[in-house]
Amino acid sequence: MDIAHLFFIIVAILVSAKVGGELAERIGQPAVLGEMIAGVILGQSVLGVIPPHAEVLEVLAEIGVCILLFEIGLESDVKELLRVGVDSFLVAVVGVTMPFLFGYLVIHYWAYFWTIGEYSGHELTALAIFTGATLTATSVGITARVLSDLKKLSTSEAKIILGAAVFDDIIGLVILAVVSAMVVKIEAGENVASVLSFWFIAKSFIIAMGFIVVAVVLGLIFAKPLFDLVERMRVRGFLIVTAFSLALLVGALADVAGSAMIIGSFAAGLVLSRTNQFNVIEDRIKPVADILTPFFFVMVGAMVDVKIFNIYNPEMLEYLLIGLALLVIAIIGKMMSGFGIVKKGVKRLPVGVGMVPRGEVGLIFASVGLKSGLLTVPMYSCVTFVVMMSTFVTPPVLKVVFARVGGEGE
Amino acid sequence: MDIAHLFFIIVAILVSAKVGGELAERIGQPAVLGEMIAGVILGQSVLGVIPPHAEVLEVLAEIGVCILLFEIGLESDVKELLRVGVDSFLVAVVGVTMPFLFGYLVIHYWAYFWTIGEYSGHELTALAIFTGATLTATSVGITARVLSDLKKLSTSEAKIILGAAVFDDIIGLVILAVVSAMVVKIEAGENVASVLSFWFIAKSFIIAMGFIVVAVVLGLIFAKPLFDLVERMRVRGFLIVTAFSLALLVGALADVAGSAMIIGSFAAGLVLSRTNQFNVIEDRIKPVADILTPFFFVMVGAMVDVKIFNIYNPEMLEYLLIGLALLVIAIIGKMMSGFGIVKKGVKRLPVGVGMVPRGEVGLIFASVGLKSGLLTVPMYSCVTFVVMMSTFVTPPVLKVVFARVGGEGE
Repeated sequence: MDIAHLFFIIVAILVSAKVGGELAERIGQPAVLGEMIAGVILGQSVLGVIPPHAEVLEVLAEIGVCILLFEIGLESDVKELLRVGVDSFLVAVVGVTMPFLFGYLVIHYWAYFWTIGEYSGHELTALAIFTGATLTATSVGITARVLSDLKKLSTSEAKIILGAAVFDDIIGLVILAVVSAMVVKIEAGENVASVLSFWFIAKSFIIAMGFIVVAVVLGLIFAKPLFDLVERMRVRGFLIVTAFSLALLVGALADVAGSAMIIGSFAAGLVLSRTNQFNVIEDRIKPVADILTPFFFVMVGAMVDVKIFNIYNPEMLEYLLIGLALLVIAIIGKMMSGFGIVKKGVKRLPVGVGMVPRGEVGLIFASVGLKSGLLTVPMYSCVTFVVMMSTFVTPPVLKVVFARVGGEGE
Repeated sequence: MDIAHLFFIIVAILVSAKVGGELAERIGQPAVLGEMIAGVILGQSVLGVIPPHAEVLEVLAEIGVCILLFEIGLESDVKELLRVGVDSFLVAVVGVTMPFLFGYLVIHYWAYFWTIGEYSGHELTALAIFTGATLTATSVGITARVLSDLKKLSTSEAKIILGAAVFDDIIGLVILAVVSAMVVKIEAGENVASVLSFWFIAKSFIIAMGFIVVAVVLGLIFAKPLFDLVERMRVRGFLIVTAFSLALLVGALADVAGSAMIIGSFAAGLVLSRTNQFNVIEDRIKPVADILTPFFFVMVGAMVDVKIFNIYNPEMLEYLLIGLALLVIAIIGKMMSGFGIVKKGVKRLPVGVGMVPRGEVGLIFASVGLKSGLLTVPMYSCVTFVVMMSTFVTPPVLKVVFARVGGEGE
């Protein structure tokens, strides 16, 4: 592809992402939903503006998702998290376990009564685990926005939700690392049964947790002196280039260690949030993230095949029905997270509803699944549909629930 | 190439570029020289870290050079330029004409007495024109830095140099557009003779100038309302993404119009320098440019074959000698630009010396020549050597000259 043509595609991606994001925000939805829909429209199944297998765009999307996770890490305050305490943690654990379990069961029993494409045997078990995992991570952005609009951010419910969402992200990332490790083995032609073994899963879990812990500990030792040195450099942009490079470097190291790349980028962000140059880094990485992250969400959307929404095609109708079943359990599963609350006087329903939206991490799961071949295109479209819809239904419900039941201010 | 491997290469490029830039600045040289040398070291002829024909890295380098020219355009003030007036313009014209003429003659007469690789006939004429063109554009950054260190920025000489450098950039870009158009035709297998015709060159010149004028006029009409609208958007990063997209879009349009891509990006920058959001755009594009432009300079360096500096190889010695001859006339030619001064009481020598450093635009020429096949690898290495050395020799000479002869403050 010649460079001018590629530039036109890049401009189409960026402009439609921002316009889509803006339209979504105007109707009270998160911008990321609009960016994804822009991707669906530019993708192969609608306009076909984004060519299949464009290496450059895929790399830009990969860099984009790493910078996104780096930013999330940068904004997570480890100390603040520990302070929010046990309620948020329990809400997160229940909110991860239930959708995982329900997602697994839906796929398992669906295949018991009917069929799902060509899936069978161990591939089906792998699909069930993967689908369950995709439904685990809350994206709290939309909830935070709604609560802020309702001026309820200072309620106990809101604080628990915000804390739980961060724990949730970390647990979700670790699950992703485990699932990615499984996927890599399956891609390499390894027996699916061996990959589903307890030991393999335990090992992947330990690598992922271990990687975060080691990266954060080493980071806390070396980041400060490194960045104090960088600050003494005279050449323009040394600080931002170092931060950007660390995000990619630790990501690549996580990949080499057999974990997920974004785990590394997230750890790099966590570490840099404790440096003296934190404010400058946060400020300067913003425009870089603004330009790079839309590539990820647009590419996620572009890979969706809208044909599954054609209800007159019986083969596709099946996926739509699976999608609806998953959506129902995704919502109910997360609403049960309210039962994790120990503190007295806190309403469970508003917390549960606030945890429903899924987002970035769920989409990352789906794209890993598609790339590895574990998710077929219809199954991928089905899962991203669930992620999108869970976000879509939350704001109006949350408004009603918070207005009626919840929200004693502090 | 898998993504983790590519990430390691990207990190190597960014980190070595910044370290190289820092080292260069510490010894009083421009950072870009250090970035290029870092590229030479990472390139095929030394460490081989940068793989040949890596599409992703080439695209990042292209985006980088467009954002660089966008920034230069953003910082050029058209009104200020017209105010500096006739002296700067004449200095620029003389300073472009002389090196062009001398560069042409050196290649022409060299080939008359000896040989240059396999070049002959019309290819030789094309090479002579191209080499002359490469030597035209001053990079004033290093001069501005030295004058600032000497506290001579307020002298008439300094003002003339800074103004001339901007005219020089524009003239250089237009020459590049003309030469690029020639190169595209030659690549397409067209007869070199027809490409060297007066009409073809005149047409390319008119397209390039016309493109800048049309883009700037349309831009001045539409940019303000567009960016006032963009400012009302709520979604994060709309402004910076729009500015970035315009830089690539106008670049791609210039390419389609048969001109050079960077002409378009430069025009986009010129236009946005007149919007109300200019300060925000300038501030936010900085970190983006910090991350993207090193790719260009490192890739420029990576394409240099250090074997031409092996004086024991008679075949390569030839190129080294051509390089030295070009360097001498590149310096003398630019020093003659001082004769363009009309204003009385202004010293000619300091202005001439201040115009000697070549930089970004010269390197862009060289990389266009290499990609098109018009420059062979040894000839490319030879031309980039001249660009690098012209920058390298200037600061000490400039210090002596300004201290002795020049510099009545205003």
